[in-house]
This record gives sequence, structure tokens and C-alpha cells, in this order.
Amino acid sequence: MLELYKSEFLKYLDARVEIKEPKNLYEPIAYILSLGGKKLRPILALMAADAFGDNYKKAMDVALAVEVFHNFTLIHDDIMDDAPLRRGSKTVHEKWNSNIGILSGDAMLIQSYQILESYDSDTFKKLLTIFSKTAIEVCEGQQLDVDFETRKDVSINEYLKMIRQKTSVLVAASLKMGAVVVGADEIEAQKLYDFGLNLGIAFQLQDDYLDTFGDPNTFGKQVGGDIIENKKTFLYLKAIDLGSKNEKETLEFLFDKKLIDNKEKIETVRTIFNDSGALSQTKFAIKKYTDKAFELLDEIDISDEKKVLLRRFGENLMTRTV
Amino acid sequence: MLELYKSEFLKYLDARVEIKEPKNLYEPIAYILSLGGKKLRPILALMAADAFGDNYKKAMDVALAVEVFHNFTLIHDDIMDDAPLRRGSKTVHEKWNSNIGILSGDAMLIQSYQILESYDSDTFKKLLTIFSKTAIEVCEGQQLDVDFETRKDVSINEYLKMIRQKTSVLVAASLKMGAVVVGADEIEAQKLYDFGLNLGIAFQLQDDYLDTFGDPNTFGKQVGGDIIENKKTFLYLKAIDLGSKNEKETLEFLFDKKLIDNKEKIETVRTIFNDSGALSQTKFAIKKYTDKAFELLDEIDISDEKKVLLRRFGENLMTRTV
Repeated sequence: MLELYKSEFLKYLDARVEIKEPKNLYEPIAYILSLGGKKLRPILALMAADAFGDNYKKAMDVALAVEVFHNFTLIHDDIMDDAPLRRGSKTVHEKWNSNIGILSGDAMLIQSYQILESYDSDTFKKLLTIFSKTAIEVCEGQQLDVDFETRKDVSINEYLKMIRQKTSVLVAASLKMGAVVVGADEIEAQKLYDFGLNLGIAFQLQDDYLDTFGDPNTFGKQVGGDIIENKKTFLYLKAIDLGSKNEKETLEFLFDKKLIDNKEKIETVRTIFNDSGALSQTKFAIKKYTDKAFELLDEIDISDEKKVLLRRFGENLMTRTV
Repeated sequence: MLELYKSEFLKYLDARVEIKEPKNLYEPIAYILSLGGKKLRPILALMAADAFGDNYKKAMDVALAVEVFHNFTLIHDDIMDDAPLRRGSKTVHEKWNSNIGILSGDAMLIQSYQILESYDSDTFKKLLTIFSKTAIEVCEGQQLDVDFETRKDVSINEYLKMIRQKTSVLVAASLKMGAVVVGADEIEAQKLYDFGLNLGIAFQLQDDYLDTFGDPNTFGKQVGGDIIENKKTFLYLKAIDLGSKNEKETLEFLFDKKLIDNKEKIETVRTIFNDSGALSQTKFAIKKYTDKAFELLDEIDISDEKKVLLRRFGENLMTRTV
């Protein structure tokens, strides 16, 4: 069933992408949308519509809008991070240039609003109210992430707020908007949102975990990448919190350096993450947010049959090794 | 009356600007909105509402949305042009940095949609349909402008299309949206749009004209700036079209150079613009679009009394020397 949502969505996406003039505006849009990816957000929108209604295809434009929006954020984030690669291919600003990246990103943000014009005006306004609030939160989350790079005093709570805004709210909004288009009750749709919010945080914390402790043979990105980049992830912040004076000083010393050969640095940091208790605390936090998500799912007033898919999707997501 | 619209709008704007966390996202927004400017688009939105309804204040959020949108385009355009100054002050990316400029611009684009949530859902959808279409056209216009910098074969028609999209559609949409919120008839609102479209083109062509032939004592920017920057404006394209072989070659030679001292270049180019007939053709085109705008205004089904302000506004705009 999950595969069906994805393949139906990809068909729909493919039919909607159009390269108009000026080509330098529309080709980058077609390009980033063709790079693959898990399509988590569109699938969640379709699943939510299926859970609350009789025709998940009603949420196809919600699925498209959240996917286009998500890819807008990727283009602009990649410019800000000066990232050369995205999903194994050149980023838009590398393949074209930064100006084209800025402008085609802007156009995608506008398109994501335009796509929703297919809904009647009451639904349209409900959707856009959720969507704009979410979009602003994503911008705030990205700004916090940028700010954190140069701050030495980021707290665990601030970090959780950042990942909630940068990642989880869009996951949550995809679910809620999918429910809204099939006329779900506001309170039930909000529970689904909260399920998504907790699942999104668990997902991002797991991403932090896998980046440092994942299997190099199955993890998509370079294992140890966050350590090489001196990223202050949940693992790092917990280790600073829980570690001995010596461990803390070693971490701060190592996270102040950019090295050519990172093998030893990665090993040392891993050991500190383990010994300080940060690793087990991170695993605990992942489990806590996952459990909370499933608890919220259980409370939603839909049949168990309808819940199965959402639960299975969450479980698959949280047992992934990639 | 025009001054009243402006001062009422500025009061409204001032009350709505809020510097929340993260500061690096919201301070640049407050900054660019405080830099002044003519506030043409908000004033037009309020005038349109006054022409078709009994309370222009109903259009206050339209006025705010178009102003916030316009300033979003300024932040991103300034990054793309690497411009150091905007309205005599540092541009956002100069005062902060490019990443902050990209992100606060993105947030402003989203805010411009959010501001319109104050309207009922039918009006909201009507407004957003106009707004998104316009916003995409503005992006296309900006991309054409960027593309033209490296193209040698830009036609007059392509140039007109570019300025229509980059400048005029937002002027036109400001008027139409102002009319929509007070319930104007669709056909009449569209005539007002077309009035704005023609006035906008005339305004931009006049900007080209003043940049080269304006009075240095009253023109806000450096007279000759377009020539120094080798910008292929309407004057240049007309001169290439109408000039002798010699004039054409001199222009192409001069517009391939970046000089330290531009005094002689400016004088030579001005002479060619004059002698080739490009200057008089430009004046003719400004008059043609202005006249067309006023013709369209005359056809709108509102009282003469209501038209007076719009006509006076257009006349003031087109007799400006700054």
C-alpha cells in the first residue's frame, strides 16, 4: 500500500511538472523534483486522507504542495550551507548558480500555494492557514540552525525546538492537511498533527544517531559527517551535559577544529558519546518520542484498521538503518 | 488625500511590524520595511478600494501584503545584483549577510500570504489567485532580466515583456486586489488592472529615461547609472534598432566596457540616443502607455468623482522628475 501511494504520487508529480519559459527558472525546478528521495511528506498526506476519508486521491494536491515546498527549502538550504551534493547529484546552485537557486526556490514557494487553488475556498483557507504557519516555522527553524553554528551555549531544549521547527512541523502539517481535505474533524486532525510532530522529532534524533553510529554499508551519507562538520547535534549537547570535565574539554577542543584526516577524531568522539551516557540518552529520547507518537495515534477516533498503516509506516521509519 | 492614504498606511504598517525570535530572521524584515520609499503599491490598493467601495480601510491588509511582497523581491534582487545600497541605506545582505537575506526574504513572502488571512474565505481565495499568479510573473520577469544581462539579441518586445512582469503586474494586481476586497465587479476590476499594467510600463520606461536624461539635482539615483552598468534599457535597444551602422557599433563597443571614469561614455551614449531617434521614440512610448492607461480608466464604470484621484495619481507619477 505504501508503495502504491508513492507510485501514484510520482505519476501525478510527473504529469504536473512543466518546463516553461524562462528555462533558467523552470529547469532547476524540474531537476530538483526529479532527484528522488523518500517522498515521506506526500505519502503521509495521502495516508491521512485515506485514514479519514474514502478517497486518498483528494489529497493529491496537498501531497504535491508539501513536496514542492520541501524542495524549495532544500534549494535555499543548500545555498546557505554551500552544499555541493543533494541526493547524490549536483545541487541547483552548483549546476546553475546561486542567483538561479534563489529565484527558482522563490518560484517553488509560490507554486506550492498555487497548487492548493484546486480546493474549494473554505478548504483552501483552512489549508493555507496551516501551511503558512508551518512555512514560517520552517524558516525560523532554519534560522535557529544557522545561528547555532556560531553559538557555544545552545541548550538541549533549544536544539529540540530547532529540529521541531526545521523538520517536524512539515511532517505534522502534511498529515493534518491530508486529513482536512477529506473533512476530518478539527480535533482529530490535530491529534494526527501531534502524532506527526513527535514522529518527526524521533526521526530527526535518529538521523543524528545514525550519522555517528550508523552502518557505513547501509547509511546513505558519510558516517561521521556531523562530527567532521562539528555539528552540535543532540548527541554532542547531551555529552557536554553529562560528560566529565575531561570529556567535555576534549569535545570542545575537537569541535573547534577542521581536520583533513578525521578517523581518530571520529573514534574519540564516539567513545565519549558512549562513555558519557549521551548515546544511551539519545536512544532513550528516540524511544520516548516514538512511543509518544504511537500513543497519540491510538487516541485518534478512527478504526484500528485505518491506524494500522500509519503505525506500520512509523515503525518502518524508526527501524530504518538508512 | 494621497498623503492621507500614505500616512494611514504607514501607521498600520508600523503597528504590524514585530521583532520576534529569532532576531536574525525578523530584524532584517523590520529594517527593510522602515527604509521608506514611495509606497506606490499600497496607495494604489487603498485608492482602488476607495473607488469601488465605501471604506478604503478594508484594503489595508491588501496594501500591507503587496508592500511586504515588494520588499521581499527587493531583498532577493539586491542579493542577485550584489547591490550595496537600497534607498540610501545598506542592503540587507550587506548589513547582515546573504544567508540572512535569503531566509528573511523567504519569510516575508510567506508573511505576505498570511496577512491576507484576515479576509473571508471567498475573498481570500480570489485575492490569492491573483496574488500567486502575479508573484510567479514577477519571478519570471526577474529571471528574464538576469538572462538579458548575458544576451546580445534581446528584442524590444522581450524587453517590454520583462518590465511588464518585473514591475507592472504588481502595480496592476495591487489595484485589482484593492477593488476585489470591496466587492467590485470582476470585469471592472480587470479594467483597473489593465490601467495599472499600462501605467506601470509607462512608469518603468520613464525610469529608463530619467536614469539617462534626468536632472542630477532632483533624480534620486546617479544619473547615467544604467550606462555605467551597461544596462540594455529601452533607450539602448531602440538606438540599436534605429541607429546608423556607426552609432550601433559605437554603442556595442561602449556597452562592452566597464570604465573608471564614465563622463565621456555617458556623453557619447546620450548623443547617440538623441541622434538615433531613440530618445524621441522612448518619449513617444511613455506617452503611448500613459494615454492608454487613462483611456482604460475612462471606461471603468465608476463616477467621474471617483476617477479623479486615480487620474491625478497617474499624472503626478508621470510628471515626476525624481
